[in-house]
Amino acid sequence: MFGQMMDRPLLISSLLRHAERQHPRREIVSITVDHPRHRYTYREAFIRIRKLANALARMGARPGDRIATLAWNDFRHFEIYYAVSCSGFVCHTINPRLFEEQLTFIVNHAEDRWLFLDPAFVPLVEKLQPTLTSVEGYVILTDDAHMPATTLANARSYESLIAAQADSFEWPEFDERTASSLCYTSGTTGDPKGVLYSHRSTILHCYAMALPDASGLSGNDVLMPVVPMFHVNAWGLPYTALMLGVKMVFPGPKMGDPPTLQSLIDEERVNFAAGVPTVWQGLVAYLDQTGKRVDSLKSVLCGGSAVPVSLSDALRDRYGADIKQAWGMTETSPIGTIFTYSPEAQRLPDAQRDSLRAKQGRCIYGVELKIVDDDGNELAHDGKSFGALKVRGPWVASSYYRRDNDDVFDQEGWFSTGDVATICPFGYMQITDRTKDVIKSGGEWISSIGLENLAVAHPAVAQAAVIAIAHSKWQERPLLVVVLKPGESVTREELLDFFSGKIARWWIPDDVAFVEKLPLTATGKLSKLQLRKRFEGYRLPTD
Amino acid sequence: MFGQMMDRPLLISSLLRHAERQHPRREIVSITVDHPRHRYTYREAFIRIRKLANALARMGARPGDRIATLAWNDFRHFEIYYAVSCSGFVCHTINPRLFEEQLTFIVNHAEDRWLFLDPAFVPLVEKLQPTLTSVEGYVILTDDAHMPATTLANARSYESLIAAQADSFEWPEFDERTASSLCYTSGTTGDPKGVLYSHRSTILHCYAMALPDASGLSGNDVLMPVVPMFHVNAWGLPYTALMLGVKMVFPGPKMGDPPTLQSLIDEERVNFAAGVPTVWQGLVAYLDQTGKRVDSLKSVLCGGSAVPVSLSDALRDRYGADIKQAWGMTETSPIGTIFTYSPEAQRLPDAQRDSLRAKQGRCIYGVELKIVDDDGNELAHDGKSFGALKVRGPWVASSYYRRDNDDVFDQEGWFSTGDVATICPFGYMQITDRTKDVIKSGGEWISSIGLENLAVAHPAVAQAAVIAIAHSKWQERPLLVVVLKPGESVTREELLDFFSGKIARWWIPDDVAFVEKLPLTATGKLSKLQLRKRFEGYRLPTD
Repeated sequence: MFGQMMDRPLLISSLLRHAERQHPRREIVSITVDHPRHRYTYREAFIRIRKLANALARMGARPGDRIATLAWNDFRHFEIYYAVSCSGFVCHTINPRLFEEQLTFIVNHAEDRWLFLDPAFVPLVEKLQPTLTSVEGYVILTDDAHMPATTLANARSYESLIAAQADSFEWPEFDERTASSLCYTSGTTGDPKGVLYSHRSTILHCYAMALPDASGLSGNDVLMPVVPMFHVNAWGLPYTALMLGVKMVFPGPKMGDPPTLQSLIDEERVNFAAGVPTVWQGLVAYLDQTGKRVDSLKSVLCGGSAVPVSLSDALRDRYGADIKQAWGMTETSPIGTIFTYSPEAQRLPDAQRDSLRAKQGRCIYGVELKIVDDDGNELAHDGKSFGALKVRGPWVASSYYRRDNDDVFDQEGWFSTGDVATICPFGYMQITDRTKDVIKSGGEWISSIGLENLAVAHPAVAQAAVIAIAHSKWQERPLLVVVLKPGESVTREELLDFFSGKIARWWIPDDVAFVEKLPLTATGKLSKLQLRKRFEGYRLPTD
Repeated sequence: MFGQMMDRPLLISSLLRHAERQHPRREIVSITVDHPRHRYTYREAFIRIRKLANALARMGARPGDRIATLAWNDFRHFEIYYAVSCSGFVCHTINPRLFEEQLTFIVNHAEDRWLFLDPAFVPLVEKLQPTLTSVEGYVILTDDAHMPATTLANARSYESLIAAQADSFEWPEFDERTASSLCYTSGTTGDPKGVLYSHRSTILHCYAMALPDASGLSGNDVLMPVVPMFHVNAWGLPYTALMLGVKMVFPGPKMGDPPTLQSLIDEERVNFAAGVPTVWQGLVAYLDQTGKRVDSLKSVLCGGSAVPVSLSDALRDRYGADIKQAWGMTETSPIGTIFTYSPEAQRLPDAQRDSLRAKQGRCIYGVELKIVDDDGNELAHDGKSFGALKVRGPWVASSYYRRDNDDVFDQEGWFSTGDVATICPFGYMQITDRTKDVIKSGGEWISSIGLENLAVAHPAVAQAAVIAIAHSKWQERPLLVVVLKPGESVTREELLDFFSGKIARWWIPDDVAFVEKLPLTATGKLSKLQLRKRFEGYRLPTD
């Protein structure tokens, strides 16, 4: 027997309708190439969104069509998000920092019909243009006055596209499972994989992100998303903002520029910001140097990689802003866990309470987490057992776009994150490794990240990486690869001794290799894949 | 094209699963007849909920079966909520204060198979038993030691029912639109009407209730729902609590007892309470008399009828607790609007900002409101235009249980609330009348409540009611009916003069009738229905 409640679909257009009624005066502030400080209200934004919807309809877009963006965070990108998804098309945000071959693969795999791009990316896209097989036209995110000369086909300025359009538009109603946006994740191997979000998943994620023990954002906050809008929809914040009526501040191409971030925070009274740790490390360094302040800032949502406790301390102790560490992935929309104190954690002794901040937080309602061993058996939440992290929920991907049978989606409906984690008795999850990097020694797991963190604490070590080496008795044993600091020296034995007493005896690496530098990926991360290739066939002294 | 996200249904059992993982140590404290202060953790509660689920299965309950409760707010009632709904049955909460004929009608109309009741209601239900045609057995909410002698058929104690059951249970998965609970609303005329909630509507309402600009509850709060669990599921708070991990304090049969409420708040450190205005008026009077304090209390969610500003002032100024006024109905799950300050409202001059508190608040995301005139045309949100209030959203009823074609559900999918309201430019809604009580004079509407509020400000007037009287020229004109204070006197002319300059000239009533007392409904509210009957055929001096 069904309940007798209204069958209202969860559509992104309902955010627009709500915000227009409830929060018309709220502001959106942006930096763009053609505006040093663009400022308008939700009401003005929504008029332009409806004009863009009319333009898209006139361009001949059909339900389900992919419309791509290559753009920084600003008001025009925000308008595209809403006009495209609410019309029933798919907003495909692309990371401009990817390799050119990846960009071509992604556009062609998605079969994007139009590409909206910032003027700064025109040279890049002109170069790619001959390889892009599906794109019918290009829209440059500026006005005619700032329009660059270009060889792009059917190129026009965004402002000229929407200028003559009517400012009324009836948003269509459709099934809430309809695709709304698309984001590719590029692993270290294989082709980029697309995650296709739905209206339903977006709205539910939005509710979850707004919970008091998640972001806790309210209509009285001023939010600056420094996480790119091509990075899992800026963690869903442009949606959450409209649900709650939050003033938004978009730094545009100045996302990595601490002086701009400081002045935006200070002048716009930003109290809530979001971005990866390196952004805040850059800002803290700038503030430390200049003596400038960000006194309005109270909360910083931070994820994408583990947040160093030293960064949390610096922001809290010197600048009065609390970091909310969070964990998620493109496949999880992204919110999986977020750090806030539970009442039980609040009551812990200071040192123990403080140490929890190294963890990625607790999972919020809607997300289910489990850690499992090699046989899929669930492991205890004791803060020590670590296993492969699996996740399930209505905003978690069930498959990749136009790919079949990826084994990360298991039979029981869980997604294998590729992370290895512990979960403590208070529910706090901590990533300890990537599945492919963990060392499996005699049926037990050794965390490569745990060993690396110890190794870099040695005064002579600049960088460290630990990889698994095949072993005839133990299957795998750890090899420590180090880069020494200039002018420093240390022996193999001294380094291995350094681990004694700090970890279980059987975790201590079997050997040390000294190298000049470690291989990096295109995005500047350590490439363990290349490192493993380099040490393929390496024979450990213990074997 | 559909998104590729996991198809996870929104089921109430997911709240249990989440809370058991994330908040096992959180407490639930109750007063019951057999426990002066019962206390256990979520984990212990969930074990008993699974035992009850096994008992229900053994009793032969089938999907969709209605299982009724007649009980105050306590831990056992809470267990029934979850065990019944999560098993796929319908938890039918009944208001024990209804007339006996209404109780019989409701149980028979719902075809309840079992009735779970507090020991205090045994005499009442024994009396009704011969008229209840569907009930197969009765479960008394106590243990064998406190079990009263009873003539109820197949009666047994709740504790004996669950004692021998296994404590594991696999919650079934089913369509999220499945019915979860049932609540009847009794109007002043006609049979009570049932609102049948679904799992989906319950979960979405739960998310909405948790929003920072709605309840703003978090896992660090201590919540005391004084609103009965038979009154729109205690405004959904027992669900929201599990989503967030909120400690709950249930006052059981002591809901109307200020000394108990004061000691529960103080001893359990309650910081968030919820209930109708009369509960808080009683508490404030008690605190004023005794000098006792409720220093932990910070927020009071208050609705059910308009909250007098004097009550908000008393709680805020003398006891440091902010009233969050809210509006909703059984048909709206119930949350429709809730009062919090928007940034624009915050910036108003003090007096203007303060005066907003008389309003019922702003609608939260998920709910859509509109006010319309007699022809269904939408009216301006100018704070002056008032019209019939309509509402739409995924937690609003689309029809009543086992009734067809109620005209409150319109063709366009809106529910007519029966309220008349204004909406101000800042989005704040204020109820100004009931649709059937508004006076329609020459095509314009006059608010009966507005006139009554003015009339009772006159020093001689104890009570006032304004009703419409048929008029040959204006269709309807207002008649003011007053009860004078003992020993006071005032003339018709003096009273009508009293309105001059305070409202539009054409709003001033055409006549005054002095009466000894005003007719009341069974629940103690003014009965305008009876008053209109009494003045049927009344001839106004202006006609």
